[in-house]
Amino acid sequence: LLLLLSLVCCSAAASVDKPNLSKSFLPHYEPDGGDAVGSSQDTRLHVFTVDYDYVQIPYEVTLWILLASFAKIGFHLYHRLPRLMPESCILIAIGTLVGAIIFASDHKSPPVMSTSIYFLYLLPPIVLEEGYFMPTRPFFENFGSIIWWSVLGSLLNSFGIGLSLYGICQIEAFGLTDLNLLQNLLFGSMISAVDPVAALVVFEEASVNEPLYMMIFGESLLNDGITVVLYNIFIAFTQMHRYEEIESIDVFAGFARFFVVGLGGVLFGVVFGFLSALMTRFTHNVSAIEPLMVFMFSYLSYLSAETLYISGILAMTACAVTMKKYVEENVSQNSYTTIKYFMKMLSSVSETMIFMFMGVSTVGKNHEWNWAFVIFTLLFCLIWRTLSVFALFYISNKFRTYPFTLKDQLIISYSGLRGASSFSLAFLLPVNLFPRKKLFITATLVVIYFTVFIQGITIGPLVRYLDVRKTNKKESINEEIHVRLMDHLKAGVEDICGHWSHYQLRDKFKKFDNKYLKKILIREHQPKSSIVSLYKKMEIKLAIELAEGGMNISESSTAALQSGRNQQVHRLSPTEVKLMRDVLAHNLYQVRQR
Amino acid sequence: LLLLLSLVCCSAAASVDKPNLSKSFLPHYEPDGGDAVGSSQDTRLHVFTVDYDYVQIPYEVTLWILLASFAKIGFHLYHRLPRLMPESCILIAIGTLVGAIIFASDHKSPPVMSTSIYFLYLLPPIVLEEGYFMPTRPFFENFGSIIWWSVLGSLLNSFGIGLSLYGICQIEAFGLTDLNLLQNLLFGSMISAVDPVAALVVFEEASVNEPLYMMIFGESLLNDGITVVLYNIFIAFTQMHRYEEIESIDVFAGFARFFVVGLGGVLFGVVFGFLSALMTRFTHNVSAIEPLMVFMFSYLSYLSAETLYISGILAMTACAVTMKKYVEENVSQNSYTTIKYFMKMLSSVSETMIFMFMGVSTVGKNHEWNWAFVIFTLLFCLIWRTLSVFALFYISNKFRTYPFTLKDQLIISYSGLRGASSFSLAFLLPVNLFPRKKLFITATLVVIYFTVFIQGITIGPLVRYLDVRKTNKKESINEEIHVRLMDHLKAGVEDICGHWSHYQLRDKFKKFDNKYLKKILIREHQPKSSIVSLYKKMEIKLAIELAEGGMNISESSTAALQSGRNQQVHRLSPTEVKLMRDVLAHNLYQVRQR
Repeated sequence: LLLLLSLVCCSAAASVDKPNLSKSFLPHYEPDGGDAVGSSQDTRLHVFTVDYDYVQIPYEVTLWILLASFAKIGFHLYHRLPRLMPESCILIAIGTLVGAIIFASDHKSPPVMSTSIYFLYLLPPIVLEEGYFMPTRPFFENFGSIIWWSVLGSLLNSFGIGLSLYGICQIEAFGLTDLNLLQNLLFGSMISAVDPVAALVVFEEASVNEPLYMMIFGESLLNDGITVVLYNIFIAFTQMHRYEEIESIDVFAGFARFFVVGLGGVLFGVVFGFLSALMTRFTHNVSAIEPLMVFMFSYLSYLSAETLYISGILAMTACAVTMKKYVEENVSQNSYTTIKYFMKMLSSVSETMIFMFMGVSTVGKNHEWNWAFVIFTLLFCLIWRTLSVFALFYISNKFRTYPFTLKDQLIISYSGLRGASSFSLAFLLPVNLFPRKKLFITATLVVIYFTVFIQGITIGPLVRYLDVRKTNKKESINEEIHVRLMDHLKAGVEDICGHWSHYQLRDKFKKFDNKYLKKILIREHQPKSSIVSLYKKMEIKLAIELAEGGMNISESSTAALQSGRNQQVHRLSPTEVKLMRDVLAHNLYQVRQR
Repeated sequence: LLLLLSLVCCSAAASVDKPNLSKSFLPHYEPDGGDAVGSSQDTRLHVFTVDYDYVQIPYEVTLWILLASFAKIGFHLYHRLPRLMPESCILIAIGTLVGAIIFASDHKSPPVMSTSIYFLYLLPPIVLEEGYFMPTRPFFENFGSIIWWSVLGSLLNSFGIGLSLYGICQIEAFGLTDLNLLQNLLFGSMISAVDPVAALVVFEEASVNEPLYMMIFGESLLNDGITVVLYNIFIAFTQMHRYEEIESIDVFAGFARFFVVGLGGVLFGVVFGFLSALMTRFTHNVSAIEPLMVFMFSYLSYLSAETLYISGILAMTACAVTMKKYVEENVSQNSYTTIKYFMKMLSSVSETMIFMFMGVSTVGKNHEWNWAFVIFTLLFCLIWRTLSVFALFYISNKFRTYPFTLKDQLIISYSGLRGASSFSLAFLLPVNLFPRKKLFITATLVVIYFTVFIQGITIGPLVRYLDVRKTNKKESINEEIHVRLMDHLKAGVEDICGHWSHYQLRDKFKKFDNKYLKKILIREHQPKSSIVSLYKKMEIKLAIELAEGGMNISESSTAALQSGRNQQVHRLSPTEVKLMRDVLAHNLYQVRQR
């Protein structure tokens, strides 16, 4: 690890001195014969030669990824560490250490956490993984509450924090009077972005109940869109403010943008999702590239949305949700496994690197410390989040069959972890419009560090202490059949009552799906019922688990099995094994036929 | 497809006008407040905005990859096409079409096939896949023949073609007298590089016998190193030639480089391979990043080797061969599947893109046509390859137990397909040293097109016509056990005879491996015998195949099974199923215990 660390530092140190990175795009041999005339010694043939420029970009990317993986492996080597604190804390700490070493060696931080790196390369894998593995059923069952909470919550937080800070800025003793209202509102929108990565990592480890998880998930999904729109609007307003008045038409355009960004993102995602599903219909002879369809189409939806300044996060999530069902039916078992695990790997690496890069970028000359601003920012972040949670859930609970308990609300308000998105938005601020950009960066960092370290470490124990309902979901054929039966039943009851709700909607969509979409998007000769594919999936899972199972059995369970084995298992004769295999094979086939 | 094609063309057209690509590394918001003063209209808030520069690089990469995948899917949609010609031909044709469209729209080809893109991003996945899936046993069994043929073959071809062409250049009527000896030798070394991609694709489709396949595989593996060394030496000599005399020390340094490049590459690969295997020992809690270890360490070995100008291809292959055995024992079943299939996917995409890019880069203003040079190059390529094959195999056959037949030799000499490596080396030539670079590029392209199209299309039928022995390898426990028994037996016989050969060597290595390497590199609590892991692997494969099997069964076989089913299979009672599952689970466990 130390070796690698020093390698990274050296290479980073070598790279920061260069004016730009594009140099390494030059070919291996530059036609520099003219320069070499002076020193004929250089043209001698050497047995060893070094050309680092040529490989610089991929080399450094590889080293950073490896460093991140080593940090992750090291963190999990000791069993006690993961119980004490979330991974993110350690990663940020390691990042800060690396950043400090690099900074000490040449007084500059490497430009690892630039905004385009974050938004174009590091965020998409995480969004894709979240969207692809999102439990669609609970998401749509809690859809109303999610929209209500995430949209209004983000707006309340943004304006609340912005306006309160503007009030603080009026007090002359703090030396903040040069910050105007728009700048404060912009900072408010920036700092209110709850990070999808930081919060969900903690929640997944704590495995809380589904509605609670869906609230945080939905929030992180939608509030990116809202925050980025607010951020863009405020930047545009600040720009206008210098030259002319802001007219009411601009405010209307701002509102229109919300809808364009949100609905446009979803539309993009759905279209690309269907395209991707359609393509996998034709890949039966080239199954090697099946995973590519999933990754490339969803990335394309993200990039296309970003190009048009609409929410890439929403687009990618919508794309993943749309394609998932059809792609899974189409692709081969091996492609399916590859898609699933590679997605998990990518997002895990991205996550690791985001936290590490955040640590690295902390060290530098970008800071301006102001006690009042920093402390009041932190305070308002906490206050406004708690206020908005309790106010909004008080209202939304009146419409829910199972209201969120006070415990749930406490956890939601406590899980407002800020992360890389706020950080990279702060770095993005144009200096000419925001002369005190450094102050904003420092305050953002303090809020991030406070929420990730203090709240992140304590939220796990808090969940345990409050004894929040946990999830215990397990897939089984039986459950699946009963859930479907109940769905049909409820849809029927609603139909008779004349009440039009989401059971009806789902029933209608399923009929439409079976009649048209599946016929277009799914290959022919596939099993007709999804129950059969679920059975198949579980059989394979079982087979793999059986074979895997032996690998990690500890000594104690081995002894237990040892005694059990002698009693229960008799040796198998070859004919028995053959019969068994035949029966199993035909049994599977039989199910498919029905 | 057409839609995508036009998208690619548009974006490419948009990009070629820009002076450099580094512009898109700029952040989302450029601090351009100063510029905006003049046109206050621009600062109005818009509902829609477009910012293509920001996403340009990943967007275009994604589009190219998708275009390549579509070409691949389209090619395999019609069953007749793959039988008529290799994929590479169609891909080059599509590439040329795309290139022509882009060229027609703005008289410039997009810089897609630059040398760094080829050597840093497109080649490594292919090399990794080849190395990882290389059958190590036949490779080491034919090691002597492979070294003999690939090293001497490459040298013979390089010097043969170079010297013959120099002879042709002396005839004044052809207008080539300005080409000196060194330039011709360099061209010879460049054009004699048999392409690992083009040749092996054809061979895999034809599934020829193993020793034959290993010859071509070994050649493509080693001759890269040799060609690149020769190329570098000749470039250095050409440079020296202009200013001073070439001394004998330079020639010695040239020879030394061969060994440094070859052995250094292997050493690098082995070290990184062991490191990677060692790392996977500790990933049991973070199995999500297991595939990363394989991909990143092998890429790092490649890049490190390339930095030092030693053979990256050899390094990566050695790394893959070294790590494979240990990594497979360490990682989970799902990681194993992911590694395998993602590797195949990456290499398949790279391959597709290389051929397409070659097509795209063909169209342009880089050409100078000279009938004599082009035709004689083609002729000498064919003649020298045939000569060297028959001469070298005549000698090496005397030392082989199973000599290569004349048919085999004919196939080897006919499979000298040139591809992207020659092409990108030609593009790399410094113009100031090689004023007739365009002539070299044209001649290289003609040789590539001739070998890929004419030889590539006819080699399949030729293999079938000559009735070359084919491979029919199938994994089975039985075979594996017998092979091992025979190995031990042969090693024992050799020991008694006092004859020291590769059976002895293998036996010694296996003992060393069991005693030290495995203890260091493989996790504890793993099954001790590799026969058990083979059994497990095959059980899982069978389970997956069983479940998959139903998917592609045609109507006719369904009917056959239908009748069979009624006779053989009786319905299973729940107790029977439970018993069966128990027995299977314990059976697997039992084997592991032994």
